[in-house]
Amino acid sequence: MKNLIADINKAFENRVRLGIMSILMVNDWVDFGELKEMLDLTDGNLSSHISALEKEKYIQIRKAFIGKRPNTSFQATTEGKQAFQEHLNALEALIKGM
Amino acid sequence: MKNLIADINKAFENRVRLGIMSILMVNDWVDFGELKEMLDLTDGNLSSHISALEKEKYIQIRKAFIGKRPNTSFQATTEGKQAFQEHLNALEALIKGM
Repeated sequence: MKNLIADINKAFENRVRLGIMSILMVNDWVDFGELKEMLDLTDGNLSSHISALEKEKYIQIRKAFIGKRPNTSFQATTEGKQAFQEHLNALEALIKGM
Repeated sequence: MKNLIADINKAFENRVRLGIMSILMVNDWVDFGELKEMLDLTDGNLSSHISALEKEKYIQIRKAFIGKRPNTSFQATTEGKQAFQEHLNALEALIKGM
């Protein structure tokens, strides 16, 4: 029996990361404040998951200025989008397999 | 905007727990050896997630003897089945929402 959970990607297990990737799958660049609000998170919580996803090269970060204010925004990489789609397919297979 | 991930249950985030609950949703009693094989896990890994799910009252444990050999098996509780279904619905909503 094929291992039920082998294709589920540990990098996306956490629900915060599920939320971040879901948003970045359907949006181009999304900034820190928007993600924080959409997912109702603290700065620290969001930052830690962002770093983890960046380390896996699943998201990329852009630092810019809007007027005089620094602004950090994020985009899913092609690799990230593909890996997340595979993760979703594995979740759907698990759900449908029941 | 309703928090995208609010209904995702932290108790089921880990893929091992996703696997355990998926199996117990469609089987009555499943023993330790069967779960371990189906999910390709070590004793220690499986035990730690089983205890966590038991603490949440999402599964119940039965200890019996098969011949002279002790046998431990598990069953999802009604509460566990309901909570897991809600978790799956939230995952599906997240996936479909994209």
